[in-house]
Amino acid sequence: MSTTASPSTILSARDLQFMLFEWLDVEQLAERPRFAEHDRETYDALLALCEQLATEHFAPHYRRSDTEEPAFDGERVHLIPEIASALEAFAKADLLTLTLDEEVGGQQVPHVVASACMAWFTAANIGTAAYSFLTVANAGLLLAHGTPEQVERFVTPMLEGRFFGTMTLSEPHAGSSLGDVVTRAVPADDGTYRIFGSKMWISGGDHEMGDNIVHLVLAKLPDAAPGSRGISLFIVPKHLVGEDGSIGERNDVVLAGINHKLGSRGTVNTAPVFGGGAFLPGGAPGAVGHLVGEPGKGLSYMFHMMNAARLGVGMSATTTAYTAYLKSLEYARSRPQGRRLAAADPSAPQVPIIEHADVRRMLLAQKAYVEGALALNLYCSRLLDVQATARDEEERTETGRLLDLLTPIAKSWPSQWGQESNSLAIQVLGGSGYTRDYDVEAHWRDQRLNPIHEGTHGIQALDLLGRKVLGGGGASLMALAARIADTVARARDLGGEPAAHADALQSAVDRLGEVTLALAGLGDPERTMANATVYLEAAGHVVVAWMWLEQLVAVGDHDGDFYDGKRAAARYFFRWELPKVGPMLDLLASGDTTTLEMRDAWF
Amino acid sequence: MSTTASPSTILSARDLQFMLFEWLDVEQLAERPRFAEHDRETYDALLALCEQLATEHFAPHYRRSDTEEPAFDGERVHLIPEIASALEAFAKADLLTLTLDEEVGGQQVPHVVASACMAWFTAANIGTAAYSFLTVANAGLLLAHGTPEQVERFVTPMLEGRFFGTMTLSEPHAGSSLGDVVTRAVPADDGTYRIFGSKMWISGGDHEMGDNIVHLVLAKLPDAAPGSRGISLFIVPKHLVGEDGSIGERNDVVLAGINHKLGSRGTVNTAPVFGGGAFLPGGAPGAVGHLVGEPGKGLSYMFHMMNAARLGVGMSATTTAYTAYLKSLEYARSRPQGRRLAAADPSAPQVPIIEHADVRRMLLAQKAYVEGALALNLYCSRLLDVQATARDEEERTETGRLLDLLTPIAKSWPSQWGQESNSLAIQVLGGSGYTRDYDVEAHWRDQRLNPIHEGTHGIQALDLLGRKVLGGGGASLMALAARIADTVARARDLGGEPAAHADALQSAVDRLGEVTLALAGLGDPERTMANATVYLEAAGHVVVAWMWLEQLVAVGDHDGDFYDGKRAAARYFFRWELPKVGPMLDLLASGDTTTLEMRDAWF
Repeated sequence: MSTTASPSTILSARDLQFMLFEWLDVEQLAERPRFAEHDRETYDALLALCEQLATEHFAPHYRRSDTEEPAFDGERVHLIPEIASALEAFAKADLLTLTLDEEVGGQQVPHVVASACMAWFTAANIGTAAYSFLTVANAGLLLAHGTPEQVERFVTPMLEGRFFGTMTLSEPHAGSSLGDVVTRAVPADDGTYRIFGSKMWISGGDHEMGDNIVHLVLAKLPDAAPGSRGISLFIVPKHLVGEDGSIGERNDVVLAGINHKLGSRGTVNTAPVFGGGAFLPGGAPGAVGHLVGEPGKGLSYMFHMMNAARLGVGMSATTTAYTAYLKSLEYARSRPQGRRLAAADPSAPQVPIIEHADVRRMLLAQKAYVEGALALNLYCSRLLDVQATARDEEERTETGRLLDLLTPIAKSWPSQWGQESNSLAIQVLGGSGYTRDYDVEAHWRDQRLNPIHEGTHGIQALDLLGRKVLGGGGASLMALAARIADTVARARDLGGEPAAHADALQSAVDRLGEVTLALAGLGDPERTMANATVYLEAAGHVVVAWMWLEQLVAVGDHDGDFYDGKRAAARYFFRWELPKVGPMLDLLASGDTTTLEMRDAWF
Repeated sequence: MSTTASPSTILSARDLQFMLFEWLDVEQLAERPRFAEHDRETYDALLALCEQLATEHFAPHYRRSDTEEPAFDGERVHLIPEIASALEAFAKADLLTLTLDEEVGGQQVPHVVASACMAWFTAANIGTAAYSFLTVANAGLLLAHGTPEQVERFVTPMLEGRFFGTMTLSEPHAGSSLGDVVTRAVPADDGTYRIFGSKMWISGGDHEMGDNIVHLVLAKLPDAAPGSRGISLFIVPKHLVGEDGSIGERNDVVLAGINHKLGSRGTVNTAPVFGGGAFLPGGAPGAVGHLVGEPGKGLSYMFHMMNAARLGVGMSATTTAYTAYLKSLEYARSRPQGRRLAAADPSAPQVPIIEHADVRRMLLAQKAYVEGALALNLYCSRLLDVQATARDEEERTETGRLLDLLTPIAKSWPSQWGQESNSLAIQVLGGSGYTRDYDVEAHWRDQRLNPIHEGTHGIQALDLLGRKVLGGGGASLMALAARIADTVARARDLGGEPAAHADALQSAVDRLGEVTLALAGLGDPERTMANATVYLEAAGHVVVAWMWLEQLVAVGDHDGDFYDGKRAAARYFFRWELPKVGPMLDLLASGDTTTLEMRDAWF
């Protein structure tokens, strides 16, 4: 009864085409030298390839990777074999190098196209796709901050699919508070370091796929400053790698155990121990590590990577909701139950549930959430492309500001509303949705990770309000307001419903600006930041409304069901969703201190 | 690492005391003859007994009943043995007969006290408690509509804990649309019936506990009218029962299989087949059934029971959220992570996360949801008591109207906001909350059933707006408004914050009334009902705000942390939650037709 197999229930190829080529005008990017060699044809071929690989290699084991989750026997981690096969197909298709520079063997595909490509894999099977994404993120960080020799020894095999990568940051007592890591790095005589410490929540932290695993580990040197400025970054491979690339002896990295999760189960999540003494590489205690970049800069390197990771989480959240939406839509079209309200004859045949207004409401809400979120994710990816190829400093600055501001929203909004969307998908299926015979419950469980990892929902809120909005003196918010004003102007030119939506959006943006000023004026940082989460959520709804208005401008006066669907979903968002911002902004404007004043003893 | 074992993380005894005795003045019920023999002492003893049994027999196997879910080997259903032990302890403590009449061996405990008692069990382990509740519901229905002989043969053993009961309604093609059941009942020569058909979603539909299972089965007689008026109700025992109560041969009820669920896994959910030919009781085909009451009245008998079941689902939803709230609170008090915003020294010790404003927000929101929901559930139970012992027709009518109106809200509001609350509990625990080492993820999965079973969220909405509000010509809504006006007047007398909240509530109620009139005036039933779910959700928030104002009046000017906690949670609800009603009522007032006009082809 699994409903994963058909590409039409993984993702909408038509919607991706619309977003990339009818709205975001990706072909125009070819004017920039970096992308000059690509055209519509190569993009279409790439998207088709990804759709095919995701359908054939990732979707079929979606349920099995949940049911038969990774197991640790005390020595090795066992994964179902489909995971390795899928990742091999992915690597063989050169999908690990899409966005990288040609000079390191990359293909210089625009991020916006690469994001759309990757969307197929996260929609089909996020648990399996995660191994590749971690590896790409690891490689990207080393390409930015590693030495040429480190790149050759560790990055090249990762990009060839022979090595896998991890991000080894958290510790049992240091999750959100990474400045508190206590893993130690002791300099060795040969220029390497010896690493000692216990890590936690490490995805892909051990398995038997490929030839090696490259851990990027946060640790502190002996004389390190307290807090985040004392943290350095190290390469710690599972097996030592010779200068000639040969795989050497086992490094001292073993697992204390694995975590058993609610969802996203295909991705093994581990608690590794470095330098515990299970192995003595080179005969000495400690796991052999190689310093990346300068001492004390580990967290700043990581945060650079983390912005990309946050955009990636947002996209995973979107596609996890998108695929569940399509699966619930398929069910609603085929499941007969009940009759129209007006039908009087109880012996008339039952109708497909899509004919019930409340089921249409649940489907339309999902459509508005997932397509709005996808638009935001792809918009951000396009900003990355413009930033990377900026023609002048002004373009670079403006794009960077906007991207900084949008990143916590692009991470948190799809995570929050994706959950609501995934819940509606279950509700459409009713009792069937509550069984493990259908995928919708698994997607709902997978989704619940997204507001937690790569910075919790609350941390995104502090980042948005504290660092991005107020920290920059309002410049980012001004950049956003200018972009929105431009969209509003174009929508007003269209007249009719887009113009009405444009007015509503402009009012909301104006109000958001006023409220931001009021918060800045509170004077007390604790009060200003107390309701940061509400600010994040209000700003998120405003931004997604803008994304819907952008789509509507692209729709213009095109005829046809696809465009009418966009119009209906935009209408839904403006009538049903955007008004929710009102009470949020009222609350913020009131400087409410209810949660701040709450005392422990009162709970 | 399981956090279920301590009573203080199951439920709050202090809060139950407040609600029952300081707010709902349960002792006053002793003025009514039915409850004259009970007093505060017996209630306290009963509540303490339930707390103890729930803690010792239900909570300890909560995780195990999820991990080792019921298994079907093709013949028998296997449950972990702790389930039977817990239910035996429950029955031995005479908890199956709490609210029943003394003349049938009941204890005539008020529903409001019995609800508080049962809350301990649903909070501790809903999957196990469900078997008892199904049995009590089954017995209650037969006591109302069965013959004295049926009561003796089937009800007495259920109330003694020897037999279990089920509600066997749905079929694979007839879930929400019960009028479409096709199970057949053929009269036999001996006055019994022979039942043939397949059922679906039957909780407790088979197991090896007790001596027998009594199924209450909806089926159609040969000459039945189409639709719901053609449906009759039958007793179909798993083993035939002699007139002397002896257990006879096996009836022809077997399982086609069991459903594997997302949560609530301890309760086996089955697909039974009646009269499939696996057994031939009395040598003839068909499962032996006994007609209950009159032919064609099966659904109306069931709907009577279903109102109680819906209130029960509401309470389960509340306690599923309540226990997760308490578990997340315990975690927040003990988990150090990060520092206060104002703290500059990164080497200072980390603080418990409850000191972070956003964590307090998540805890306070949960408190506001679960205590508001519990208040609503207990208020409804008290209405049941007043209705059952009404002193005059006016009291009976007014109470009945109010209860009718509140039932879909008391079912759906805790199911919807309990989910949000359960999600916040996970969020408080962060990564740990996403693992199966802690209970919060399991409660979140359990909760997801509640907006689905006993009438989906959308069906509650149609019931509220169509049947209860508009169907009664507005009388129910007037009854509600009158009650709320009374609370508002008492809160205004208190002055200060309660008076301000009272004004906000009165405005919301007035607006709800206006919107109701506008909907009634639309003239087109499809348009009137199109956004019924929004109406349900708006009315729900108004009603729970009222419940908070009621609690605040009971708090009065009492001093102490407990009362300050109530004040803070009420403040949270009025400032953060009630304003959400505004956009909902605006949408309803606009007569929005977005979802109604949505076409299949546009998705």
